Amino acid sequence: MDYSDVLAAAGRIDGLVLRTPVLEVSPGVFFKLELLQHSGSFKVRGAFNRMLSAGELPPSGVIAASGGNHGLAVAYAARVLGVRAEIFVPEVTSPVKVAGLEALGAHITQTGAIYSEAAEAAAKRAAESGALAVHAYDQAEVVAGQGTTGLEIVEQTGGVDTVVVAVGGGGFAAGITLGTSGSVPASGSAVTPGSGPRIIAVEPERIPTLHEALRAGHPVPVEVSGVAADALGATKIGGIAFEILSSPRVESVLVTDEAIVEARRTLWARHRVAAEPAGATAYAALLAGAYTPAPGERVAVVLCGSNTDPSTLTP
Amino acid sequence: MDYSDVLAAAGRIDGLVLRTPVLEVSPGVFFKLELLQHSGSFKVRGAFNRMLSAGELPPSGVIAASGGNHGLAVAYAARVLGVRAEIFVPEVTSPVKVAGLEALGAHITQTGAIYSEAAEAAAKRAAESGALAVHAYDQAEVVAGQGTTGLEIVEQTGGVDTVVVAVGGGGFAAGITLGTSGSVPASGSAVTPGSGPRIIAVEPERIPTLHEALRAGHPVPVEVSGVAADALGATKIGGIAFEILSSPRVESVLVTDEAIVEARRTLWARHRVAAEPAGATAYAALLAGAYTPAPGERVAVVLCGSNTDPSTLTP
Repeated sequence: MDYSDVLAAAGRIDGLVLRTPVLEVSPGVFFKLELLQHSGSFKVRGAFNRMLSAGELPPSGVIAASGGNHGLAVAYAARVLGVRAEIFVPEVTSPVKVAGLEALGAHITQTGAIYSEAAEAAAKRAAESGALAVHAYDQAEVVAGQGTTGLEIVEQTGGVDTVVVAVGGGGFAAGITLGTSGSVPASGSAVTPGSGPRIIAVEPERIPTLHEALRAGHPVPVEVSGVAADALGATKIGGIAFEILSSPRVESVLVTDEAIVEARRTLWARHRVAAEPAGATAYAALLAGAYTPAPGERVAVVLCGSNTDPSTLTP
Repeated sequence: MDYSDVLAAAGRIDGLVLRTPVLEVSPGVFFKLELLQHSGSFKVRGAFNRMLSAGELPPSGVIAASGGNHGLAVAYAARVLGVRAEIFVPEVTSPVKVAGLEALGAHITQTGAIYSEAAEAAAKRAAESGALAVHAYDQAEVVAGQGTTGLEIVEQTGGVDTVVVAVGGGGFAAGITLGTSGSVPASGSAVTPGSGPRIIAVEPERIPTLHEALRAGHPVPVEVSGVAADALGATKIGGIAFEILSSPRVESVLVTDEAIVEARRTLWARHRVAAEPAGATAYAALLAGAYTPAPGERVAVVLCGSNTDPSTLTP
């Protein structure tokens, strides 16, 4: 995979996703407000790109396993494209989340005690029905779709030195790494794959999928817990993401749950941005000093999800 | 007052206020996210312009009467400029709002049963102390400052046919009327004062200051009540605003409180934008059909305030 995959994805999903705005909160510090995206997270970018890359979709439609942002995104994209969506969620999924998926017209199957059991059941069902499986992060089309966020960051900021982004399964950070590897389109200069801004890949201490994989030299399973587990709670970094994020451009940093909670509250109190914990995780790295930009460094902080109960934004 | 006053204000406040982002939610429909502005509303634009137009500020600093967005904005701007701010609020003002003002370093005086009594006390105090009074809407520098939002709308959208904006005392709508009267800067064509997009001036039915003034031919007092009264609750349209808004470009429309509540909930549920009732009032006009754009019409909807309890964003 490379920059050209992201460019192709951008052409494919143009007009279906929002070009989410960028806010320069202080000189050279930009918030990419991807949490204003359709369905409340970046996930629709990958979902649309996966579906539109498949040619004609089967009558059985698309299938995914997720009670969270990915499920919402697949259901949303399927509704827009007029295809059937089947979403498998674990039995513990809250009625509110199930209702949210149903409101988007998705067919829900609640099965399995934990996510991986629901995912297994979904894979089995897809093999039977012929439905197109949309993975939450470890598919090339999904990674390329998420990467269109990176193209926009470059265009909207006029170029940055650093992009700070949260990592769960790694599809978003990997996509952005590819999507920012081209030069600033406005400058008209040549695209040089492999170049591009530094990527600060931020994970909660309690879900260090990338951090541990980089230490081990390959994806390894980690324990999953903490405030951002509902959205960043992959047990292992995706294989595609690991390959892309194993780059000298990428620096892995960890933040505490306390820093995430503080970042989320600060985003509301100071900036009136309503983020879910995962959506505030990148910002937590700056606030808590896990990454400190140099003077004059131009930094984009990607705020990636807002599917949250707003009553928890204030203490 | 004319377009040149707004241009001058823009130069004066540049770098002190945020260039709030624009989100194109559907083709040709733009949200101007002015509710992401410093202090949670557009009011800082006018506050900064008033203070910076005054030359050297008196040792007694600035003074304003407001327990709401204007008070927060004056306190914020004074802190940034390093001057003293004295804010007069009625005795009924909630402790939360007083604490918010104090957190910005303002000196608070709680006096009077209602707003107008606090305002009178503030005027008396200003006469004694020599502090610079910053009016919430009826001062030329304040109107010009608010109008810089209009300049940005034109630049960021590439031009619109219509701007939809809420009206309280009218300073914001009047400023935007002036600020959009120039041509689109990107086109390089001549600025023609007096031209510009249609302005839809939206008021709650229960606070029709502009609507009644236009009927009477001059500003008249109105009864003030309803869900947006804390921010749009002027008893009479400002004299400067009335003159500017008495234009063939401006159309006055009314919305019900129910439409405002519905618009506020929809902004959160569909767009993840957290608005206060006043901040959702312009959008209510579109949602409720008080104004219906023609097919292909390019419309900017100004979302102007977010100083709200987020726990009330969901039913």
